[in-house]
Amino acid sequence: MTLRTKFNPEAHELDAKFRLTKYTALHGGACKVPSDVLNRLLEELGGIDQFQDDQFLGGMIIPKMGIGLDSCVIPLRFGGLSLIQTTDFFYPLVDDPYMMGKIACCNVLSDLYAMGVTECDNMLMLLGISSKFSEKARDVVVPLMMRGFKDCAEEAGTTVNGGQTVLNPWCLIGGVATAVCQLNEFIMPNNAVPGDVLVLTKPLGTQVSCNAHQWLEQKSDKWNRIKLIVTEEEVEKAYQDSMFIMARLNKTAAQLMHTHNSHGATDVTGFGILGHAQNLVKQQKNAVNFIIHNLPCIAKMAAIAKCCGNTFGLLQGTSAETSGGLLICLPREQAAKYCAEIKKVEGHQAWIIGIVEGGNQTAKIIDKPRVIEVETLDDGTVQSVPPTTTSRRPNHPKAVVQEPQKVVLQQIPQAVQEQPDLPVVSQQLPTIIQQIEQTPASMHQQTICNITPVTLQTSQQVQQVIVEDPQQYQHMQQQAQYQNHH
Amino acid sequence: MTLRTKFNPEAHELDAKFRLTKYTALHGGACKVPSDVLNRLLEELGGIDQFQDDQFLGGMIIPKMGIGLDSCVIPLRFGGLSLIQTTDFFYPLVDDPYMMGKIACCNVLSDLYAMGVTECDNMLMLLGISSKFSEKARDVVVPLMMRGFKDCAEEAGTTVNGGQTVLNPWCLIGGVATAVCQLNEFIMPNNAVPGDVLVLTKPLGTQVSCNAHQWLEQKSDKWNRIKLIVTEEEVEKAYQDSMFIMARLNKTAAQLMHTHNSHGATDVTGFGILGHAQNLVKQQKNAVNFIIHNLPCIAKMAAIAKCCGNTFGLLQGTSAETSGGLLICLPREQAAKYCAEIKKVEGHQAWIIGIVEGGNQTAKIIDKPRVIEVETLDDGTVQSVPPTTTSRRPNHPKAVVQEPQKVVLQQIPQAVQEQPDLPVVSQQLPTIIQQIEQTPASMHQQTICNITPVTLQTSQQVQQVIVEDPQQYQHMQQQAQYQNHH
Repeated sequence: MTLRTKFNPEAHELDAKFRLTKYTALHGGACKVPSDVLNRLLEELGGIDQFQDDQFLGGMIIPKMGIGLDSCVIPLRFGGLSLIQTTDFFYPLVDDPYMMGKIACCNVLSDLYAMGVTECDNMLMLLGISSKFSEKARDVVVPLMMRGFKDCAEEAGTTVNGGQTVLNPWCLIGGVATAVCQLNEFIMPNNAVPGDVLVLTKPLGTQVSCNAHQWLEQKSDKWNRIKLIVTEEEVEKAYQDSMFIMARLNKTAAQLMHTHNSHGATDVTGFGILGHAQNLVKQQKNAVNFIIHNLPCIAKMAAIAKCCGNTFGLLQGTSAETSGGLLICLPREQAAKYCAEIKKVEGHQAWIIGIVEGGNQTAKIIDKPRVIEVETLDDGTVQSVPPTTTSRRPNHPKAVVQEPQKVVLQQIPQAVQEQPDLPVVSQQLPTIIQQIEQTPASMHQQTICNITPVTLQTSQQVQQVIVEDPQQYQHMQQQAQYQNHH
Repeated sequence: MTLRTKFNPEAHELDAKFRLTKYTALHGGACKVPSDVLNRLLEELGGIDQFQDDQFLGGMIIPKMGIGLDSCVIPLRFGGLSLIQTTDFFYPLVDDPYMMGKIACCNVLSDLYAMGVTECDNMLMLLGISSKFSEKARDVVVPLMMRGFKDCAEEAGTTVNGGQTVLNPWCLIGGVATAVCQLNEFIMPNNAVPGDVLVLTKPLGTQVSCNAHQWLEQKSDKWNRIKLIVTEEEVEKAYQDSMFIMARLNKTAAQLMHTHNSHGATDVTGFGILGHAQNLVKQQKNAVNFIIHNLPCIAKMAAIAKCCGNTFGLLQGTSAETSGGLLICLPREQAAKYCAEIKKVEGHQAWIIGIVEGGNQTAKIIDKPRVIEVETLDDGTVQSVPPTTTSRRPNHPKAVVQEPQKVVLQQIPQAVQEQPDLPVVSQQLPTIIQQIEQTPASMHQQTICNITPVTLQTSQQVQQVIVEDPQQYQHMQQQAQYQNHH
């Protein structure tokens, strides 16, 4: 992977200490108004942006959707066409103005991609130039941000025509993305059924990595706290990884939603994975719950989050993300293929992180979710960190041992699929987690592992987990040690 | 006119001193980045938002337009349809949160109306909640602003579905308006021809009135300066008038653009009447100039602007406006009818303020433009202030004297229309100004006045003006006195 040279203010005749992220007190998705406050404000207003009356169009029920989801869908006057659009804007969370522009654009488009829309007809750019910028800073930074935004739009196959630019105390960037679609070109995000699984297309921890990087730069008290568990290099790497993850389009993810029969999706941003899962589950037509078991996180971010107590809610699913992945409901039999296909096209890994159960429209993360460490490899692709040591391998005879980096997939026996209410097996269902790593799609149908209850020694609570690989078990132990350590 | 009760913070359990406008340092359209700076930033970027390559669609050339105009026009994949959209956001300039919401919505829609688009398919709301609001202020003010925005959208026949809400040091409000149209449903704003006249649908001075009101409230030094020429009541009245003018939709103005064959329009906002005239003239296909002779201003605002030296550029056409009127190019023979029709439908006056000449894409205001004082009458309609005294009537035998409030219209002799290059007459063209006041449309064709050179005694410069009514001449003298006085 060709690393992007770190933004050097002096190369642009700016003060060496110039940092874009200093021109705001809130960063990225963290500037969102808490969803409970927002919902209350909207409630007082009585209905704006809320789920509105269904509208009948061309034989299909199209609800108008608002805050719960990221894009609205408006039936048009013209033969079966719908207007789908979204807006998002926030404040710099990385110091590289060009990358910031890309991230802002990518983040807006993500809302369309979550609807399975792959072609955006137009973008508008929203820009707040910090009133505290020097004239020089303004003349350097603003064109770079605009260029990044524009380049990202081009990469997505769309263009930027129009926008608004104002002076604002904080630097602000965002946009509007709009598509006019036929009915078969978008996917309403409300068709999850019990038995679906949840896939996530980018790892979590973008906010944590940006904050940690800032603490490192400032050598702040918080840095002194986390430096016991992470090195400077690890933080720099995570920040760099994070920047590229945030600037990566969810376009392929959206395209594959169509071919793999997605039942709905959302993108993960300011409310964190759990917040967005909750928004998505509330929109479902069927009585379902979302249960999240796995949290793929940029490497070391879980450790930092644990170390920082309540600062981030990364493992609770409430840490804000910026330009995060799509959280997609897929039929169980499609999920593995979906992940394999996205890997084939993009090279990046996607993760099965949970399941859809019958329920009452709530989303939750299990008590001790499995953290999957993720990093960007030298070839630029984003992958789960492969286990690197075999020391301290637990004695665990029932775990199925596979070659490292081979497929590890658990399938529900056919009988279970057909009789989901079978009592004994259904208790095990919530712990059936599938993970696909570096696996050709052809292998998915054959590999069946045993379901194995495991007790984590270092955990206070006894918890059922699935172990596909003893080395992953060891990884889990390390996670548990973090928890005990701090 | 039923006056809106002044917003009373205490009625909402807020501190008596709560003022929405204190939660920003820049107000309304004044937050725009100066157009020269913006153009330079865009130039560095090379083309974004600039006039782009023409795109051929369905036998019609549709240029993509950007910053020069307020809405972009994007040809869609579907049979002759175009996506037309716009965004605008800014900071509070009035203290009534509900009215602020209406104004913000109205201001965004105005960009569509300028394209002759009368039906908006969807709006998004952009909201920045001031991080300095108390929780109470937030819970009172934000729903009121949202309600105002939503009510205005309903009045326009559209709905708000979606948006973004962030925390920001300054309170921020705005939106996005989008329409999908057939080719005959919008009017490209680039077809002005020499001989057209320029019509303005709302008076200028919104920014001046809001600032003056703030000075009055704060009893600031600036208030001490202007109180010599305006009373508190006059400032309160102007502020109130201004609020309703800004909250009035340009929808009728847009509808009538179609019936009266408009050659293009723009809406007047942050760059002032001259700034937007310049943007509009630069987009024209024909080699034309715009010459502005008349400046309809909210009563007393010209006097305040003159008193304040360079603070505002009201008479120079550079004073920022918020949610201003449409500036419309109309065929000369349509302009009078257009103004009469708008008055018939809405009750409000529109003004012919200038002409289109052959030229090189520049816009200017004549050296001593005529200021037309405008106020809202008791019936809620916005009108030129009728002359109230006849004292000091100048001896001006050549001026055509009409009954006050009767039609005063000058038509170009047919010969001139057909031979625009006729040298002697063409010199007179720039001074041919038409004004329609409280006139049935049927009268427009008959009334022809003489063109009369007049010398303003109090002016340093000799200037040719047209006098339709001696009382207006007196009014001009008063204006000139302001200028000498300060």
